Amino acid sequence: MDLFSIGQKVLAQQPFSKLLGTELVEFSAQGAVLKIPIRDELKQQFGFVHGGVLAYAADNALTYAGAIGLGVEVVTAEFKINYLKPAQGDFLLARAVLVNAGKTQAVCRCDVYAVHAGGETLCAVAQGTIAKLARAAADEGT
Amino acid sequence: MDLFSIGQKVLAQQPFSKLLGTELVEFSAQGAVLKIPIRDELKQQFGFVHGGVLAYAADNALTYAGAIGLGVEVVTAEFKINYLKPAQGDFLLARAVLVNAGKTQAVCRCDVYAVHAGGETLCAVAQGTIAKLARAAADEGT
Amino acid sequence: MDLFSIGQKVLAQQPFSKLLGTELVEFSAQGAVLKIPIRDELKQQFGFVHGGVLAYAADNALTYAGAIGLGVEVVTAEFKINYLKPAQGDFLLARAVLVNAGKTQAVCRCDVYAVHAGGETLCAVAQGTIAKLARAAADEGT
Amino acid sequence: MDLFSIGQKVLAQQPFSKLLGTELVEFSAQGAVLKIPIRDELKQQFGFVHGGVLAYAADNALTYAGAIGLGVEVVTAEFKINYLKPAQGDFLLARAVLVNAGKTQAVCRCDVYAVHAGGETLCAVAQGTIAKLARAAADEGT
Repeated sequence: MDLFSIGQKVLAQQPFSKLLGTELVEFSAQGAVLKIPIRDELKQQFGFVHGGVLAYAADNALTYAGAIGLGVEVVTAEFKINYLKPAQGDFLLARAVLVNAGKTQAVCRCDVYAVHAGGETLCAVAQGTIAKLARAAADEGT
Repeated sequence: MDLFSIGQKVLAQQPFSKLLGTELVEFSAQGAVLKIPIRDELKQQFGFVHGGVLAYAADNALTYAGAIGLGVEVVTAEFKINYLKPAQGDFLLARAVLVNAGKTQAVCRCDVYAVHAGGETLCAVAQGTIAKLARAAADEGT
Repeated sequence: MDLFSIGQKVLAQQPFSKLLGTELVEFSAQGAVLKIPIRDELKQQFGFVHGGVLAYAADNALTYAGAIGLGVEVVTAEFKINYLKPAQGDFLLARAVLVNAGKTQAVCRCDVYAVHAGGETLCAVAQGTIAKLARAAADEGT
Repeated sequence: MDLFSIGQKVLAQQPFSKLLGTELVEFSAQGAVLKIPIRDELKQQFGFVHGGVLAYAADNALTYAGAIGLGVEVVTAEFKINYLKPAQGDFLLARAVLVNAGKTQAVCRCDVYAVHAGGETLCAVAQGTIAKLARAAADEGT
């Protein structure tokens, strides 16, 4: 099975990603892109996409980017996110790249865009560590 | 209206928090606690709560903690989260405290626990900045 | 050799810590405390201690806290720091605690105080990951 | 005075940057680059550059990148750094870019390289928030 198909299979196995309507748009050596259609259920009290959705998007895209270097048996160990602009429009695109892969961990970066009639707005940027699941993986990480 | 009631009203205005079933458990000068019942829809492919849910919980609890110092017209400017253990059980508790409040920004910390038959497990820890919404607030943050 | 003596020995082997004048004040199961006398050479252009010194203090104290759970052959994998107040006075105290230790990694938190005639001021808070050095440790981390 | 000259003047006013031997290599709309010659005094116990030096380099370069969008009266509000590889060689280069500038805050990213006979090694990546100093600026940040 090619990388993209494997990635789609993993996403389909995440009930939370199904709840949010996430789609895998790209998953190759060049990076990973997730798309999340914006709908009212994903918003906060000011009418913008909830920061938690952007954090989820970044977390998940970072994990995919880490998988490029480590294989798909990975979890996010940690990440940080800076919110730049309110997210509104038709859908989110979370674009992540692998920065560095060691034997058991990878560091990745992600940009989260909101796509709307007027173009794309960079709404958040993230950076984090992805860890390979070991035999005793149930001990650490999510 | 007392602080807790204001907090509940804000939460009720967040469609994404409704989708996740979040409840406000505590909101006082001592801190903020959010509760999220764990259900299958919130999980990832390994059967644990998705990291994105923990990130959402941390983000939202941090915002409440920031509101203690800045008032409820606030958004998360940035945060980081470290995942410690897989989250499973009956519900999540995200407990956040205000560390420092300036005039327009506050720094807060949050611990996310999974509560299960055997007790509580600390699953993630977070730290971040909450920003007061200014007139031109639509420019920055979520 | 007891834990505190081992910690002192490690610190004495760090030329950069010598350059900064760092002293180990506490190193026990309860946490690690580093002290850095404030002198003009450690300041920035506004007359306060340079943020880089606070970041160094946090980084190093976090590493000590991680060593409580993992042993002293450790390095900082990543951390984040929030600056709260300008640091001025007689010396800095960086107090770090172990939050969670897995087999190869630990997550720790640190508070950096400036101590002056009027008492202590919390100047920065940090959170990060400490990694155990493996045989192939030269591959990753600092 | 042109931007680069202003940047050099600021650096010359930072005693800690003098102690570390930091030089400003580039400071333009395209980004900021700081250079730090590697010498024994900057190392840790394993013979590599101390993580605290890399953190300082990232912190300072991020501040310069923020100044591109906000003017030079700025401080670092927060940042996170991931260490990728041990730093050794002749000098460090911290290259930072402005990602987004609002009215009072900017978000920036930084890559820290070690330059040696064999080329460049990416040793750390960072992301953080730079804040404009306000009248009441002495209240917050470093």
